[in-house]
This record gives sequence, C-alpha cells and structure tokens, in this order.
Amino acid sequence: MVTYPKDWKQKLNQIINGIDTPLGRAFDIALIGSISISCFLIIIDSVAPIHVVMGTVISLLLNFFLLIFTLEYVLRLIVTPKKRDYLLSFYGIVDFIAIAPIYLSFFVSFGSFLPIVRILRLFRLFSVFKMGRYVDESGALLKALRASKTKISVFLFTLLFIVIIVGALMYIIEGPEHGFVSIPESMYWAIVTISTVGYGDISPQTEMGKFLASALMLVGYGIIAVPTGIITSELSNASNKKEPLTDQKCPICGNSKHAKDSQYCNQCGKKLT
Amino acid sequence: MVTYPKDWKQKLNQIINGIDTPLGRAFDIALIGSISISCFLIIIDSVAPIHVVMGTVISLLLNFFLLIFTLEYVLRLIVTPKKRDYLLSFYGIVDFIAIAPIYLSFFVSFGSFLPIVRILRLFRLFSVFKMGRYVDESGALLKALRASKTKISVFLFTLLFIVIIVGALMYIIEGPEHGFVSIPESMYWAIVTISTVGYGDISPQTEMGKFLASALMLVGYGIIAVPTGIITSELSNASNKKEPLTDQKCPICGNSKHAKDSQYCNQCGKKLT
Amino acid sequence: MVTYPKDWKQKLNQIINGIDTPLGRAFDIALIGSISISCFLIIIDSVAPIHVVMGTVISLLLNFFLLIFTLEYVLRLIVTPKKRDYLLSFYGIVDFIAIAPIYLSFFVSFGSFLPIVRILRLFRLFSVFKMGRYVDESGALLKALRASKTKISVFLFTLLFIVIIVGALMYIIEGPEHGFVSIPESMYWAIVTISTVGYGDISPQTEMGKFLASALMLVGYGIIAVPTGIITSELSNASNKKEPLTDQKCPICGNSKHAKDSQYCNQCGKKLT
Amino acid sequence: MVTYPKDWKQKLNQIINGIDTPLGRAFDIALIGSISISCFLIIIDSVAPIHVVMGTVISLLLNFFLLIFTLEYVLRLIVTPKKRDYLLSFYGIVDFIAIAPIYLSFFVSFGSFLPIVRILRLFRLFSVFKMGRYVDESGALLKALRASKTKISVFLFTLLFIVIIVGALMYIIEGPEHGFVSIPESMYWAIVTISTVGYGDISPQTEMGKFLASALMLVGYGIIAVPTGIITSELSNASNKKEPLTDQKCPICGNSKHAKDSQYCNQCGKKLT
Repeated sequence: MVTYPKDWKQKLNQIINGIDTPLGRAFDIALIGSISISCFLIIIDSVAPIHVVMGTVISLLLNFFLLIFTLEYVLRLIVTPKKRDYLLSFYGIVDFIAIAPIYLSFFVSFGSFLPIVRILRLFRLFSVFKMGRYVDESGALLKALRASKTKISVFLFTLLFIVIIVGALMYIIEGPEHGFVSIPESMYWAIVTISTVGYGDISPQTEMGKFLASALMLVGYGIIAVPTGIITSELSNASNKKEPLTDQKCPICGNSKHAKDSQYCNQCGKKLT
Repeated sequence: MVTYPKDWKQKLNQIINGIDTPLGRAFDIALIGSISISCFLIIIDSVAPIHVVMGTVISLLLNFFLLIFTLEYVLRLIVTPKKRDYLLSFYGIVDFIAIAPIYLSFFVSFGSFLPIVRILRLFRLFSVFKMGRYVDESGALLKALRASKTKISVFLFTLLFIVIIVGALMYIIEGPEHGFVSIPESMYWAIVTISTVGYGDISPQTEMGKFLASALMLVGYGIIAVPTGIITSELSNASNKKEPLTDQKCPICGNSKHAKDSQYCNQCGKKLT
Repeated sequence: MVTYPKDWKQKLNQIINGIDTPLGRAFDIALIGSISISCFLIIIDSVAPIHVVMGTVISLLLNFFLLIFTLEYVLRLIVTPKKRDYLLSFYGIVDFIAIAPIYLSFFVSFGSFLPIVRILRLFRLFSVFKMGRYVDESGALLKALRASKTKISVFLFTLLFIVIIVGALMYIIEGPEHGFVSIPESMYWAIVTISTVGYGDISPQTEMGKFLASALMLVGYGIIAVPTGIITSELSNASNKKEPLTDQKCPICGNSKHAKDSQYCNQCGKKLT
Repeated sequence: MVTYPKDWKQKLNQIINGIDTPLGRAFDIALIGSISISCFLIIIDSVAPIHVVMGTVISLLLNFFLLIFTLEYVLRLIVTPKKRDYLLSFYGIVDFIAIAPIYLSFFVSFGSFLPIVRILRLFRLFSVFKMGRYVDESGALLKALRASKTKISVFLFTLLFIVIIVGALMYIIEGPEHGFVSIPESMYWAIVTISTVGYGDISPQTEMGKFLASALMLVGYGIIAVPTGIITSELSNASNKKEPLTDQKCPICGNSKHAKDSQYCNQCGKKLT
C-alpha cells in the first residue's frame, strides 16, 4: 500500500487545517481552549501572591500546554507539503516562538540567569497570536482601514508634524525645570495630550505653556475627528454597497434604477435580459 | 357573580400593566416617582453629614417606599395569570431583589452585622431597574448595536488582544518598580491608556515604556474610531431606511422588494396599483 | 410735527435692531467690540499680578463699558414698542443682569462686603450672552441636535443609570478608605471615568475595583460613540437633503427620480407640469 | 550663446521644482532625507546623555545639513524668475528661517549668550515645514475642513463661550485655595476637562464644583461629537460625490445637471447621447 501514508497525512491535514470535519472542529476548539487557558495562567502567574501559592501547579500546567503546542507544531510540519513555506510563514514563526524560548529557558535556568528566564518564559504569551487563524481577515473593518490607507498616512504625518513642533516649543517654553527635560520627552507629553489621555505626570506650569497646551487640545478635537470620520465614512460606504442597483439598462425606457435581482423593468414592465 | 373577581383582576391588571387608562397612567407616574425619590434618598443618605442630620427621616421614608414596592410586587403577582413566569422573568427578579434584602437586613440587624446590613440596604437601588419597563426597547440605538453585533465582538477581541500583548510588554519593560507589578496590573494600565482615560496613577517611567505608550495611544485613535464608526454608520443606515423600498406586495408573486417608484413588479412584470 | 418723535424712534430702532443700514452695522460692531473687550478685561483682571499693576485702569475702563451697556439698555427700552415683552425676554434679562449687579455692588462696597462685591462684579461677564444676538440660531448643528432630542434623552438616561449602578458598586467595593467616601462621590468618579477625562484624583485601588473600572471604560467607548453617531448621522442627513429629488411623477413612464429643477422627465422626455 | 545661461537655469529649475525628471525626483528624495535626518538629530541632541556623548558629532552633521539647506535656498533663489515673490512666499520664509538664525547664533555664541543660542539653534526644526511641499494640498481631509469652515467657527465660538462661563463659575465656586487662582486658570482647567484630557493637576474639591464639572463633562460629549460629525459627514459626502450627476452637457441648453441615468435633458427635453 504505497498510498497509505499519503492518505493518512491527508486525514491528519483535514483535522489540523480543515474545519468541515467533526474531528477538525474538535481540534480547533481544543487548540483555542489550550491557548486561552495557558494565556490566562501566564497572566495570573505574574501576580505575586498567586505565584507564591500555586506557582508550581501553574508551571506544571504550562509545561503540559507546552507539550501540546510542541505536538501541534510537529504535526503541522508533518502534514504540510511545503515544509519551508510553513516554517517561514507568519504562523509558522509564531508557532515556533511560542515554544522554542521555553525550551531554551530550561537550559538557561541551570545557569540560573533568572531575569532572562523570566522573560523567555513570557514568550509563551506569543501563543495568543495563533488565535489569528480563527479571526476572518475579510472583516468590514479591515476593508475600511485598507480603503483609507492614504488618508490615514496623511493623518499620521500631520500628527507627527504637530507633535514635533509643539514638543520643541514646549521644550523651549517650559524647559527641564517643569519636567520637559528633552524634546522627545516633550513629544511624549504632546502625544499624551493630543490623544486626550492626559496622565498628568508632566503638565505645563507657565502661562504660555498652558495657553499652548489649550490650543493643542482644541486641535486635538479635529485630530481625533479625522480617523473617526475616515473609518465611519468607509464603513457606511461599505454597508451602502451591500444592496447596489444593477446597472443594466431597460431597452425600452432606458431606466437602470432596478433592484439587484430585477426580472422586469420597474418603469415600463419590459422583461430584462 | 362568578366572574366578579376575574373582572376585578382584569381592572387591576389594566391599572398595573396598562397605560391607556387614566388610572393606569397615574399608577405608572406614581411608581416612577417613588423609584426616583427612593433612589435619590439612598444616594444622598450615603453622604456622612447628611446621614447624621437626617438619617432617621430618610430611613423612615425609605421604609415607606419599601411598603409601596412590596405592595406593587404582591399586586403584580396577583394580577398575573402565569405566576411562575412573572417570578422568573427579569422584572420579577428585579422587583424581588429590590425588596427582599431589606427585610432580611431587619433580622440581621438584630445580630447587628452592620457591614452586611449596609450592603443589604443598598440593594434598594435595584429598584432603578424597574425604570426599564418605561424605556422603549425598540430604540434606534439598540437596533444599531444589535445590527453590528459581530463587528463589535471582533472589535472587543482585537482590544483584548492588544491589551494582553501591551500589558505583558510593559510588565517586562517597566517592571514592578514603576508600578507595573503584574500583567493584570499592566493590562489595567493599558485599558486606562487606550480608552484615553489616563488617571496617571500608573504611568511609564522608562524611555522605551514611554515610546510603547505613545504607540498605544496612536493605536487608541483607531480603536476609538471603530465603535463610533460602527454605530454611526448603523444609525445613518437606519435613518436612510426611513424611505425604503415600497412595502406594497405584488398580487401575483407576492414579492415586495420594489424600488420606491416601481410601476411594475420587478419579479413577474405585473402592473402594481 | 406729531410724527417726529415716532419717526425718530423708528430711526433709532433701525440702528439698534436693524443690520441693513450702515449705522445699524456700526452699532452692532461697536457693541460686539465693547462686549469682547470688557469680557477680556474682567478675565485678565482676575489674575493677581495684573490686578495689582493695572487694576485701577481696568476698573475705570469697565465702568466706561458699564455706561455703554446701560445706555444700550435704556435705548433698547425706549425703541421697543412693547416694553414689558422686552423686559421679560431672554435678552432683556441678560441686558439687565449684565449691569444691575454692578450698580448694586457700588452700594454694597460702602459696607465693604468684599467677597459679595467680588461676585457681583463678575456678573459683568453676563454681557457675553448678548453675543447670542449675532449667532444665527438656524445652524445645521442646532437642527441636528433638535432632530435627535429623543435619542439624546435616552442616551442621558442610560448614562445616569450606568453612573448610579457603577457608583453604588464602587462605593461598596472600594469604600471611603480609597476616596469613594459616598455614592455621589463615586458617581462623580464614574462620570470622570466614563467621559474619559480621568483626573486621577480618585482611582480604584482594589483588584475588583480596577476590574469594574476597566469594564466601565470599555462601556465608555460605546457611550462616547452614541452622541457622535447621532449628531453625525443627523448632519449627513441634513447635508444630503440639500439636493433632494422632486417627488412629481411623470404621467407617461411614472418615473419620479428627477433632479430638483427638472422641466422634462429624464426617462421618456415628457414635459413635466 | 546668449540663451545658454537661461537654458541652464531652466534645467536647474526642472531639477529643483519639477518631479517628472529622474534628477528632479532624486533632488526631492535627497531633500526629504536631509530634512528628516537633521530633525531627528536636533530632537535626540536635546537628550542630555546623548548630547554629552555625541553632541559634537551631531553639531558637525547639523552644520553639514545647514550648508545643504543654504545651497538649496540660494539655488531656489537663482532659478526663480520672480525673486521677490519667492522671498515673501510661505516656503521662501520657511527656507530662510530654517537657516538664518543658525548663522546668527554663531556670532551671538562669541558673546556666549547661551540660552539665546540654544533657542536660535532650535530654529533648525523649521526645516520640517519644507516637507509641506511634498504633501498634496488637495487631500479629501483639507476639502472636508474647508467645506465646513462656518460650522467649525460656530463650534469654536460656542466652545469659547462655554469655557468662559464655566471658568468664571468655577473661579467663584472653588476659588484660589483649590487651585483656581484666576479666571484664565479656570478656563485652562475647563479646556483640559471638556477636551477629556484631564491632567488632574487642578481638579474640583467642593461638592458644587464637582457637580458643575460633571455637567461640563456631559456637555463635553456633545462638544466632541460635533467636529467628528462635521468632518465625518463632509468626508462621506465627498466619497458619495464620487458617483455624481453625469457631466454630459446637453447640446441644446448646455445644462449638465442630469441624474445618473438620464436619457433626456431635464431642462429642454433633448435626447441625450
């Protein structure tokens, strides 16, 4: 039976990459579950008191999920015809980064470089990117964003422009003694302000500084309005285009304002081709 | 007179659930008034100085409203044909929770578990949910929200995704010494930042942290834009649909998807009246 | 000459209330100028160092403008046929409040109740309301707002509802020791948070508090989106309605999709009535 | 060869102001590069540690770019037929300010007025304005902004109005002891609040102050909504106008305002081709 292994691979491929077989669906659900749980564990494990009490249990569970993800990686590698393409694909790299550093950390931990280990372990969170496989890329939002690429880039350029100028001005006006220790720092403040976040860790002290800040906030209105406006108009265009009129002309009255699935002209009753 | 009690129940039902009789309207207004006043009293009673001066008067008034709500609950129970359905309905539970804990608190208070009593008493605020009965659910806003369920869930998933990644990164970059004591804490900071609230109780101290924060704020623009865009486009669609396809049914094929000014059915070519 | 005074009054009326005569326009510009300058003076006069240096000059100038506004008030009273209506009209009251308290302050100042005097003097700022006369009320914005009155009220009700519930919950969860000293105080915090202002003067300290706060911020997105959505859709409707199609039907082909000023049916060429 | 220099000037002009020749494009790219790098250098040079380590290298590089910009200025001056117009044009002034102060600083630095020198040097950042040459002014955003000039001015007036009134009220309610030291200061706070920035450096302490602040925040919603609404509706109109009335002129009456699918001129009834 020469075709046996091939056939067996196909079955496996169907389970791993397909979603139309019960087993395939089960696999996906299991994977999503594992990702969610392991991410949740990593997050709560970072809370000191929780780590103290159940750190060992969590690390055991995480190692279990590590095995699962490793197995998944191996299987994906087996079933994919073009190994190289998978290895260098976005998800191929994600799958790798989600497991490799942890194995590395085991060796490093012998040398007990703890801070490095801590960071290497956090690479586990990369598994969250695997989720991307299950979010459809063809969403209206993405379309809207793509459609207005140029507008958005002009917007970001303008923003950077304002931030540089205002940052430099505030650096001169307020100066280091009021927390504006450098232009990058002032630019950070400008972004914090124009995005209306306003931590208040740095804030203008002088009259002129406050005046300039006020102006910046008013500009901020317009700035905030722009991306909203872009995305909104794109979205409404998208949703309008859902029910377009056919552009087939009626041979008799020449009217072309027909609902999408018209069989007859709604002006003169002529059969449409 | 066998039908007497039934008839009497119907009258009562008309008053309690109906709004087309003068008495029914009066009942509703009285109830809304009672809810508003009792909520107002509970709120101001939590202000220490006010509690000291007129706490006793307020609690007397609240007990009076308690009686009213109890009476209302009993009456609703009497007039409803299907008792069980009402008891387990949303408003049935609201009506219950708005009164039961207070009665419970009376007994507890004998044992004087004051903190528990305090909380039990606050359950009175639940009466505010009764208001829901008088807000029409068929508002354009709710429709808009429902219409874009999927978009909103994709939006929330993306948000969670960003918050996890940024939270983990800031936890590594800034670390506990700058207030990012754990990933959940960092995620809290990320939400505070991306929603442009920016309390400033936690804020990045390192250059890299500030740079990442700035990037997050810029992303925040897009993030804020999305729900606005969704709801706006839904709302404008809704208001556009005010002048939709005519709803005149074609006598032949029953099709009713005709352009506004259709003279003939676009499915079977029948002249429309 | 019996008609003389009447005629003279008419002329004056034309100057004061009209804008189509050169004198009338001059009067308006002079008035707007006086209002702007006097407001500016009052504002800067509140700055201690400025007050010290040029307080006397400013108060002299303000008294000069006081005379102007008094004169204006008297003239308006003279030229208006229905005195009573003017006195009780919005602008009649504004004009009065903008001058009366200052005169009052002169007497009070003899008894030197300085804080009261200070406040009375600030009533001068009321003159800014006079500006309203020169802003056209028929703006698209106002229309948009009026058109969506009900939506906005539902929005505000929902907001109040959320603020009460969250306020009460935070009052229980965080309690006075973390700054949530009363339900009104918690409600204030909730508004500061949901409006994404986020002063940070009060902020949650407990895990649960932070979790609830995060939830509130996410809800805040939707909440912010709603008024924007309402106003935006209203505005775009308004601007769409600028070039509506006539609804006159063509007697021949029944088509009614005609540009506003159509003389002939654009489907069959029939002359339209 | 009389025409030689002229011809040579034209070639140069093509390189400097044209973009359709390879050299012209190269020139533009080189210039954009120089601007970006020199701006980047100025920004990082303001960071103390960086300045200490590589301040000299940076200043050398900046002087090199200074020469380039000077050369550019001279060349532009040479190739422009109407020298005067260029000198007084926006970009003429920008090009000048981006170089002149630095030369001035050299002389001043002999007298070592360092603070002044520091500021003069920062004028280099003006070169960023040169970028404007490469951003197309005919963007949809700018159109949208221009189209709604009046609306925006009404919006700003209303904003100023609210800020003055609220500022004055808070000045009276909270007073200097709570940080509202003057009306301008209160106005600054009002802008910080209504723009939802909310630094928290100044925040209301009294009950009444907090109540007024809450009201202001709710108004802030509407205020934020307005510019968004304006720009959004303008943008969607812009994108709707992509499929406008046909621009085919009627051969008889020259009218070109026809609905998309017109067969006959709606002014004179002539059949359209």
